[in-house]
Amino acid sequence: MSAFEERTRRCQDRLGAVGADAAVLFPSTNLFYASGFREEPAERHLFLVIPSDGDPAFVAPEMYDEQIRDASWVEDLRLWADGEDPAALVADLADEKGLRGGRLLVDDTMWARFTQDLRETLPDATFGLASEVFDDLRARKDEAELAALRKAGDLADAVSVEIRELGEEAVGMTETELAAEIDRRLVERGGDEVAFGTIAGSGPNGAKPHHRHEDREIRRGDPVVLDFGAYVDGYPGDQTRTVVFAGDPPEGYAEVHEVVREAQQAAVEAVEPGVPAEEIDRAAREVIEDAGYGDEFVHRTGHGVGLDVHEDPYIVAGNETQLEPGMVFSVEPGVYLPGEFGVRIEDLVAVTESGCERLNDSPRTWEPL
Amino acid sequence: MSAFEERTRRCQDRLGAVGADAAVLFPSTNLFYASGFREEPAERHLFLVIPSDGDPAFVAPEMYDEQIRDASWVEDLRLWADGEDPAALVADLADEKGLRGGRLLVDDTMWARFTQDLRETLPDATFGLASEVFDDLRARKDEAELAALRKAGDLADAVSVEIRELGEEAVGMTETELAAEIDRRLVERGGDEVAFGTIAGSGPNGAKPHHRHEDREIRRGDPVVLDFGAYVDGYPGDQTRTVVFAGDPPEGYAEVHEVVREAQQAAVEAVEPGVPAEEIDRAAREVIEDAGYGDEFVHRTGHGVGLDVHEDPYIVAGNETQLEPGMVFSVEPGVYLPGEFGVRIEDLVAVTESGCERLNDSPRTWEPL
Repeated sequence: MSAFEERTRRCQDRLGAVGADAAVLFPSTNLFYASGFREEPAERHLFLVIPSDGDPAFVAPEMYDEQIRDASWVEDLRLWADGEDPAALVADLADEKGLRGGRLLVDDTMWARFTQDLRETLPDATFGLASEVFDDLRARKDEAELAALRKAGDLADAVSVEIRELGEEAVGMTETELAAEIDRRLVERGGDEVAFGTIAGSGPNGAKPHHRHEDREIRRGDPVVLDFGAYVDGYPGDQTRTVVFAGDPPEGYAEVHEVVREAQQAAVEAVEPGVPAEEIDRAAREVIEDAGYGDEFVHRTGHGVGLDVHEDPYIVAGNETQLEPGMVFSVEPGVYLPGEFGVRIEDLVAVTESGCERLNDSPRTWEPL
Repeated sequence: MSAFEERTRRCQDRLGAVGADAAVLFPSTNLFYASGFREEPAERHLFLVIPSDGDPAFVAPEMYDEQIRDASWVEDLRLWADGEDPAALVADLADEKGLRGGRLLVDDTMWARFTQDLRETLPDATFGLASEVFDDLRARKDEAELAALRKAGDLADAVSVEIRELGEEAVGMTETELAAEIDRRLVERGGDEVAFGTIAGSGPNGAKPHHRHEDREIRRGDPVVLDFGAYVDGYPGDQTRTVVFAGDPPEGYAEVHEVVREAQQAAVEAVEPGVPAEEIDRAAREVIEDAGYGDEFVHRTGHGVGLDVHEDPYIVAGNETQLEPGMVFSVEPGVYLPGEFGVRIEDLVAVTESGCERLNDSPRTWEPL
């Protein structure tokens, strides 16, 4: 039995346990996790229906025939051609599997156009979210998954070190040019593709936590938030450092950086099995609040990382999920001073039997080399 | 009044006309189209609520405060911090705007986790899709949009010409290396970012219409399907050529390529205002069917292109939408012989008052230079 089939069988066990009749997946990481077939969301109906009993089946555009057969262990393909109505295939499949009046768990990222369509095709069904069965399965990584995440961490570390070595060369580059340079190196050093929009936030742009990059030129003394990673064997890296390439930083910057570094360290040290996820957030937040920057730490401390760059467990107040060995998440406190600069330091960590393993280990200092 | 505010007001008129009480957008091109704020879908609640009357409002994570204020004309921001419940903000907003029992049009790509949440927060509301008002607004491009699409077309053309000039150099490269080279040049020549996963399908991989690229080395005589484009000023290019870099192609290839080229030409010539979209599909399909390859043309002839790479109008059997000046779409017939090779030729065209303008004009021949 392939790893993918095993995961599907575990998913079926959990469907039974939660009283659901099927999961209906759409191109997503859940679909890849269960089937081995990877695709991006798009406007054509492409579902994998996993009933709680029996074999799963794809409803897919005809043009995916060969690709799905190459990639997936699932043999039951119901294909439709452009101009045909995929809803009829869905209805037939629901009849065969006894799902018409069932409780169906749809992929959490399924587009509204498809969930609306399912509701119309199967008016007697009730709907929940596939995360009810998948989140828990996926949160604990197996050895192969950890190996991939370690490689993705090493890659981000290597590029982080190289980029800092640009030093004076980075002064005068635009954020966009710097981000392109990071992306190029991530792929050149073995990444499959960048895992998310690389962030290069210089000076005041660093104070916008989700700023990507723009035409602003990096100046001497600018703190620059660098947040990036690439996929390796299907799993992403995600690392942040805040550095000054050359010159002297603004007043107060060194102090803020030290606060964030200590907060990040405290949070990483708090990680061990049995600790609630929110405690990790609290550990970082306490350090930052004590230093007087509590209002400037405007986001949660971290997020789980696996096939998705953001997945369970979320490291946030209110999340009482107890950490377990095999869980992997980011620890990334930050302080953002609008109009001035921002500082964020982020590593991925894997929970072990006794604590955690950092998956990133490039220097966390900001000083020009 | 900004262009974005004008679009929102037109959207409100159409909401009234179709009997809907509000559009609820989530990070998407519709949200950008109406607000000027651009973001990727993610797991945090971020909605723009556009009531049919009165002013729109954002419900957004606190950390987006500055970014939304910088990017958007919308002034009413309801912010929530990590750890707080965004549903309460949504409920309050619905009360204020009188939407609790209303008909709400949710973004077509809104994730199921958010649509499920809206259904729970507003149990008396009924739901439809925002495409009901946006598709029609967005299908007709204004001059600024056409200018951006022309630039994106020129960029794809320029890179297409350069890549063909690799000639013998491309032999021995893997598909993945060639795709990376294309992506690098698209950005270097002025693209904001690549518009979709670049396709470099060599030999038998070209017969899988949605294959991207893999480690297969390109051999002498391989037909290679090259499908790529990049965003310029927010609008994407999308162009396909099928070329042989060096050597002699497989038997039958030249004939198939000529059939596809003629089919594409016939379809482009059929474009003019008032013609139903499906007629353009028929024009291409007839040529390919007459040549005996009807069963190997396994997809529709094209798709609209605008802020989304795939949007209305779809060029497919059954779509009776009449073409109008300002509509922009791809014309991309293909023939796929499993295990052998594929051929696809694609240009974007803009409907004019009397016919159409091709937005791509790089050579459509396959021969090695």
